[in-house]
Amino acid sequence: MNNKKIVGIVGGVGPYAGIDLTRKIFEQTEAKRDQEHLPIALLSIPQEIEDRTLFLLGQTSINPAYAILKIIEKLEEMGASVVGIPCNTAHTPQIFDVIVENLKKADSSIKLVHMINEVARFIQENHPQIRNVGVLSTTGTYKTKVYPIILGQKGMNVILPNDVLQDIIHTAIYDPIYGIKAQSNPVTQIAKRKLIEGINYLQKEGAEAIVLGCTEITIAITDNKIGKTIIIDPTLILARALIREVNLNKLKPYDK
Amino acid sequence: MNNKKIVGIVGGVGPYAGIDLTRKIFEQTEAKRDQEHLPIALLSIPQEIEDRTLFLLGQTSINPAYAILKIIEKLEEMGASVVGIPCNTAHTPQIFDVIVENLKKADSSIKLVHMINEVARFIQENHPQIRNVGVLSTTGTYKTKVYPIILGQKGMNVILPNDVLQDIIHTAIYDPIYGIKAQSNPVTQIAKRKLIEGINYLQKEGAEAIVLGCTEITIAITDNKIGKTIIIDPTLILARALIREVNLNKLKPYDK
Repeated sequence: MNNKKIVGIVGGVGPYAGIDLTRKIFEQTEAKRDQEHLPIALLSIPQEIEDRTLFLLGQTSINPAYAILKIIEKLEEMGASVVGIPCNTAHTPQIFDVIVENLKKADSSIKLVHMINEVARFIQENHPQIRNVGVLSTTGTYKTKVYPIILGQKGMNVILPNDVLQDIIHTAIYDPIYGIKAQSNPVTQIAKRKLIEGINYLQKEGAEAIVLGCTEITIAITDNKIGKTIIIDPTLILARALIREVNLNKLKPYDK
Repeated sequence: MNNKKIVGIVGGVGPYAGIDLTRKIFEQTEAKRDQEHLPIALLSIPQEIEDRTLFLLGQTSINPAYAILKIIEKLEEMGASVVGIPCNTAHTPQIFDVIVENLKKADSSIKLVHMINEVARFIQENHPQIRNVGVLSTTGTYKTKVYPIILGQKGMNVILPNDVLQDIIHTAIYDPIYGIKAQSNPVTQIAKRKLIEGINYLQKEGAEAIVLGCTEITIAITDNKIGKTIIIDPTLILARALIREVNLNKLKPYDK
């Protein structure tokens, strides 16, 4: 079991995003038999991980970085060499940098893939003509401006919802009755409608591509294109990056 | 992380069945927020586990029990107290008993849930009037008669396909081009058609309920009922049994 690189997945952020990433890894892998699939370990311990947005908004002082770190260490013990976290909000510097810093301190040899850097790289490699990129996300990701900063470094202009619309997007994810975190199979019509409202707004503001910058949103919206707008799924990009890191030969060609 | 019971899942048998079980655990859990979901660990190391049916048919001498055992031990190290294996064929005595015996030898305190025993219990509790139960499965499960034996002990009469039809069912799962193990999202029309052919046959033979006795089949057929026949999904039953074992209060009511 030791000579194969295991892909580690930090689950629980949210639980369904962990499954969605796992499924996308399998789907993007060249395999005709069970035995040809890549080894993966998914550890989903949601009760240990504070809500990322609550932390970024100052509504809890507990940084979820420490619980995520513990999970990454457990994954490493299990044999993981590469790890992905299917949560955009966890990639804000306030959380992600604390994880990386502590992994270094602990002398970990884990390669932690940065989902948002991978999204920037993906757009540049596959859609180099695109300049104006809309992003839908949680309010945590929104406020920290992690997408505008990272995509901005690659010369892209990021379009975000206004504050009123952002609240609507946030409830589509978090509402305890109809939000995607409470009901995801199927996603409720009201949650989906709110997300479509966000997409329509970003299209009107000139977005050529829209990043579904919260792993719950990618469960609700599965189109590759809406009208002329390219829809970008960071979970899919993370899945492909994780395969690339452990075994490039197993990565299916990218299907535009 | 230690005071909560983690549900361990032996993935890789097959890979998609591991995800399907994980998803069904989440769906059957009372939870409105990420943090309310149960902790789970999924370890999918498919390249280590010989095909269960090849072993049962004598086409390999390597018993997959030993690789499954190693994975269960790893899950226990990660904190799992209860484990499920989403593969019907792995529950034949030739494989399952070897796992149980070796867990005992190693003084493991894992509670390993037996999926097929749970199916028998489920039918008896929820559909006590049913006598004639059809079963679709791999040829490995078919030949060992594990379903007829276990359901027979509860007074049920098990109806199986004839040998010709059994070969058709097997290819729906294993064909390297159109089989579910090679293509599952979406499942191919030809694989689905072959399974429907099996269901029609069992209905004609008098089955009041049909067990989809291979976790790949439950990915292709998602109906609860076909005509008057109740369709029984062992993965769903295993998911509910695992929740029951770790935290009965979190189990959603069964929705017939």
